[in-house]
Amino acid sequence: MAPPPAAAAAVTQAEGEEVTNRQVILKRYVSGCPTVDDMEVVTGTVRLVLPPGSTTAILVKNLYLSCDPYMRTRMTRHTDDPNFVPDYVPGKVLDNCNVCKVVLSAHPDFKPGDFLWGVTGWEEYSLIPNPVLCNKINHREFPLSYYTGVLGVPGLTAYAGLFEVAKAKKGEYVFLSAAAGAVGQIVGQLAKIAGCYVVGSAGSDQKVNLLKTKFGFDDAFNYKEEADLNAALKRCFPLGIDVYFDNVGGATLDAVLRRMRPRGRVAVCGQVSQYNLERPDGVDLFQLVGKHIRMEGFLVSEYGGDYYRRFEEEMARHLREGKVVCVEDVVEGIDAAPAALVGLFAGRNVGKQVVAVARE
Amino acid sequence: MAPPPAAAAAVTQAEGEEVTNRQVILKRYVSGCPTVDDMEVVTGTVRLVLPPGSTTAILVKNLYLSCDPYMRTRMTRHTDDPNFVPDYVPGKVLDNCNVCKVVLSAHPDFKPGDFLWGVTGWEEYSLIPNPVLCNKINHREFPLSYYTGVLGVPGLTAYAGLFEVAKAKKGEYVFLSAAAGAVGQIVGQLAKIAGCYVVGSAGSDQKVNLLKTKFGFDDAFNYKEEADLNAALKRCFPLGIDVYFDNVGGATLDAVLRRMRPRGRVAVCGQVSQYNLERPDGVDLFQLVGKHIRMEGFLVSEYGGDYYRRFEEEMARHLREGKVVCVEDVVEGIDAAPAALVGLFAGRNVGKQVVAVARE
Repeated sequence: MAPPPAAAAAVTQAEGEEVTNRQVILKRYVSGCPTVDDMEVVTGTVRLVLPPGSTTAILVKNLYLSCDPYMRTRMTRHTDDPNFVPDYVPGKVLDNCNVCKVVLSAHPDFKPGDFLWGVTGWEEYSLIPNPVLCNKINHREFPLSYYTGVLGVPGLTAYAGLFEVAKAKKGEYVFLSAAAGAVGQIVGQLAKIAGCYVVGSAGSDQKVNLLKTKFGFDDAFNYKEEADLNAALKRCFPLGIDVYFDNVGGATLDAVLRRMRPRGRVAVCGQVSQYNLERPDGVDLFQLVGKHIRMEGFLVSEYGGDYYRRFEEEMARHLREGKVVCVEDVVEGIDAAPAALVGLFAGRNVGKQVVAVARE
Repeated sequence: MAPPPAAAAAVTQAEGEEVTNRQVILKRYVSGCPTVDDMEVVTGTVRLVLPPGSTTAILVKNLYLSCDPYMRTRMTRHTDDPNFVPDYVPGKVLDNCNVCKVVLSAHPDFKPGDFLWGVTGWEEYSLIPNPVLCNKINHREFPLSYYTGVLGVPGLTAYAGLFEVAKAKKGEYVFLSAAAGAVGQIVGQLAKIAGCYVVGSAGSDQKVNLLKTKFGFDDAFNYKEEADLNAALKRCFPLGIDVYFDNVGGATLDAVLRRMRPRGRVAVCGQVSQYNLERPDGVDLFQLVGKHIRMEGFLVSEYGGDYYRRFEEEMARHLREGKVVCVEDVVEGIDAAPAALVGLFAGRNVGKQVVAVARE
C-alpha cells in the first residue's frame, strides 16, 4: 500500500502555532543518590512545524513518560568507557522510551493522530528528525500507558531475559528481585505461565502482598525485613534456585549465587542497588566456578523487529485472557516527573512508574 | 582382554613391609592468607598391605604432588553452602590431583608399577579404597610431572575453559590473568594455536618475559607495575577484548569488563585474588548488561572420560611438535610442600608448582 504523500500527512489544525513546551532537563551530573534538585522543569516554546524539506521528521505530543531505574546510569558522565546509551547532558532534556501522539509528520509511515511508543524527550512536545526508534501502537484496546510497561520495554525485557537469556523451563525454580517493579511483575507472571516455581523479593509488605495475591507468585518476601538473606532464600528454596532474574545486584545477588543449583543461570537485567554507589558491593563470584553458573547481561534493543511483534501478540493475548495483569503507579503532570524518577530509588513506586503528561 | 586375578596383581616385593609415611596435614582452618604454620608435616607409618577381601583397593607411592591455588578454598570451613570439593579437615592429610605409582593393587584395571594421575593424599603413600578418580598415564614419553600440569587438570582446564566455555574463535582478542601459571601458560598457547590475539598479565617482569618469549604471547604486562589497569588494557587492546580467561577476579576482572566488546565472554576459572579476603572486592557487574557479556564458571570434572582422552591426544601432539611448551617450578621433598602451596599466593612460583616427593 503506497503511503500518502508527506506533504498531505503534515497538514493538521495546529500547524505553525507556537505552544509552550515544558521540559525536564538535567541540571548537573549526579553522584550518589539523585535528588529532584539534580533536575529542573523549564518552560520553553516550540513552533509546530517540521524542518523544511524533511521527509522523515515527525513532531509528537508526549502523553506518558516512562520512569526507569536505568536512567540513573545516564546521569553520570562516562569518560573512558561509554554506557550502553548516551549520557544525559546538563542543560539538555532527558529522554526515554515514552508514549506519544503524532502531531505533524513528514514520514511516510506515520500520520497525525497516530499513537507511538519509542524514544522521545521528557517534554510536552518532541521534534524527532528521524523516528527510527518509534513504533506504532498496535493494540488500542489496552491503556496507552501499557506501552511504557507490559507492552513496551519492560515487558519485552522480562520476556527476552527470562526465555532467551536465562532460558527458564517448566518445573524450574525461579527467583527475582524488584519483583513488583515494571519488569519484575511481568517476569514472575510469565515464569508462572511457563510452569516454573516463582518467588520474588520486594521492599514493602504491600508489594509482597501484591506479588502473592495479584501476580500469583508462589512465595515472596520483604527483603528489608529479613535479617539474613541467605536464610530467607533457603526457606523459600530448600532445593535451590535454577534461574535468577537480577534487577538489583549487590547483597541479593551474592546471597542468590550461594543458593543456586548446578548449571544455574542469572539474567542480569539491572543492578539498581549499585547505581548510586561510588564502588560496587563485593559479590562472591567464585560461586560461579563450583556450580558452573552462567551470568549473562542483555539489552532489550537486541530483541526488536519481528521478535518484538511476536512478543506483542503473545502478551496481548495474555492480557486479554487475564493471564497477565499489571499494576501502574501514575503521577499526573510533567512537574511530577523528577520526584517520580527519584522515588524509584527509595522504592516509593508500586508497580510501573509512569508520568501522565497529557491524556491525549 | 581379561584382567589378571586380583591376588596375583597384589604380589610385590614390598608387600607386608611397614614403612614410614610422611604426610602434610591441615593444622587448623585458615582465615586470611595461609601460612606454613597452618599445615604440619608429620611422620607416621603405613603397612604395605591391602584391606583383606577388597577387589578395588590400590596402594600407591606418590611421586609428584600438585600445588594449586584452589586448594586454599578447601582450607576454610564451609558450613551453609558447601564448596565444590570437600573442605580439608584439621588433623587430616590434604589431597589433590597428584602423580603416583601403584605399589599394590586389588583392582583389575591397575597393576603394580603402573603410573597414575588422580586424587591421592599429600603423603608418601596413599591407600585408595576405590580409585575412581585415578587414571593411567598414557604418555610416558613426557616427564611424569606433566600429568600435574599440561596433561593433567590444569591443561584440561585451559582447554575446556577456552573452547567449551569461552568459545574462543580465530581472530578474537583474548586476555588472561595469572598467565604464567599452570593454567594460564596453556590457555595462552592454545589461544595462539587457534589464531587469537593473546595478551596476558603476570606478577613479575620475569614472568612477563616468559609470556612474550617462551610462550609466544602477542603482548604481556606486569600488573604490579601498572598504575592503572584500565590504561594497561586500553593500550594492549585498543579495539577491546572478546574473551577473558579469568584466574584472579577482583580489580583485574573489573577493569576487563570495562574493556570488553559486545558479546564478550568470561570463562571464570579461578578468583585467586579473592581467596584470602573476608569480603570479596566489588566488580561493576552492570557492565554485563550494556555489552551482553556472558560470565560462566566451570569445573574441569565435567570434562572427563572421552573428552579428556581427546584432549590428551591433542595436547600430546602439540607437545611433540613443540607447539606447546611448559614451565614447571619443582621443589624437592614433601617437607617443602607447605611453603610451595603458600608461595602460590605471593606469586613465588614460576610456572606450574610441583612437589617432587619421589622420582620413582
